[in-house]
Amino acid sequence: MASTSAKARRLEKLKTALENNPFLTDEELARMFSVSIQTIRLDRLELNIPEVRERVKQMAEKSYAELRSLSGSEVIGDLIDLELNRSGISVMNINEDMIFQKTGIARGHFIFAQANSLAVACINAEVALTGTARIFFKRQVKLGERIVAKATVKGRKGNKYIVGVESKSGQEIVFEGTFIIFALSDKEATMQ
Amino acid sequence: MASTSAKARRLEKLKTALENNPFLTDEELARMFSVSIQTIRLDRLELNIPEVRERVKQMAEKSYAELRSLSGSEVIGDLIDLELNRSGISVMNINEDMIFQKTGIARGHFIFAQANSLAVACINAEVALTGTARIFFKRQVKLGERIVAKATVKGRKGNKYIVGVESKSGQEIVFEGTFIIFALSDKEATMQ
Repeated sequence: MASTSAKARRLEKLKTALENNPFLTDEELARMFSVSIQTIRLDRLELNIPEVRERVKQMAEKSYAELRSLSGSEVIGDLIDLELNRSGISVMNINEDMIFQKTGIARGHFIFAQANSLAVACINAEVALTGTARIFFKRQVKLGERIVAKATVKGRKGNKYIVGVESKSGQEIVFEGTFIIFALSDKEATMQ
Repeated sequence: MASTSAKARRLEKLKTALENNPFLTDEELARMFSVSIQTIRLDRLELNIPEVRERVKQMAEKSYAELRSLSGSEVIGDLIDLELNRSGISVMNINEDMIFQKTGIARGHFIFAQANSLAVACINAEVALTGTARIFFKRQVKLGERIVAKATVKGRKGNKYIVGVESKSGQEIVFEGTFIIFALSDKEATMQ
């Protein structure tokens, strides 16, 4: 039957889509596949894929276990993926506390804090501190947007790491930054 | 009498010192002039100069009245001085909420937030947003330190401002940053 094979193809594509981007909501998936949200829910049930909140939670539990340089509450946003000295991903929802009253635009330092704490989280050391950063706010971010930050450790020289962070809302880049992070032992940090 | 003229000289110097740096505490002044804190207090009384807290408060009241691009509570730290499109000064005390649990070192994004919000505060526009920044964390800042940030508008091209910020703890530079800030009208900001 045509409808069954259409469904089978959709299930296959849905699986791939969520592997590539586990942050897609049912609403976004419904738009993507031109079906109802209810259909997406049933598809997920059939594929045994939990809803976005639960997916993110499961990823977070794995990631926080990896964390060395920060305690969990010190990461701004939710840490979703972490491979020490390689990469990390965090998600932050822009809430009322993060915006300018006049315009509803997110304040730069929250976007910065998410990126900076993610860059620090990526470092495999007891203590890691930001030395310098070059940052670009690419477009305004508004109340309710969900910012996904991806950090990549680009290079290392002794205890000095170069970490690139790209933050997106949907497919759009809203922030880019390059951070130089210094890894210290506990001892070095308290002696300074 | 020698002692009277010594006192007169001290009063003159004290006045100049506080004009140059109104954030000096009685403790710091006592050390500077090799006298007791009590002596400094009496000197201030004679000169009719209030204590540091009151001085800062008086400066802040004037400065917040100037503010255009931010509402008062949106400046991170206490705004102490503000000359629109020219310069600004803010003071922030590093408290328990701003430090890494492990090391007691201040988290970079608070130092950044103070500097960035001060840079934005300096702009004479309804709405001002950070475009890019180049920042340097020069040394670690610990719990209890008082950070004085000074912003200077270095240049302007149309609606684009270059603002330099230098943050010090005592005489030591702890942070330096250059911010590119875009001034927008209310309309432009909500339309984007």
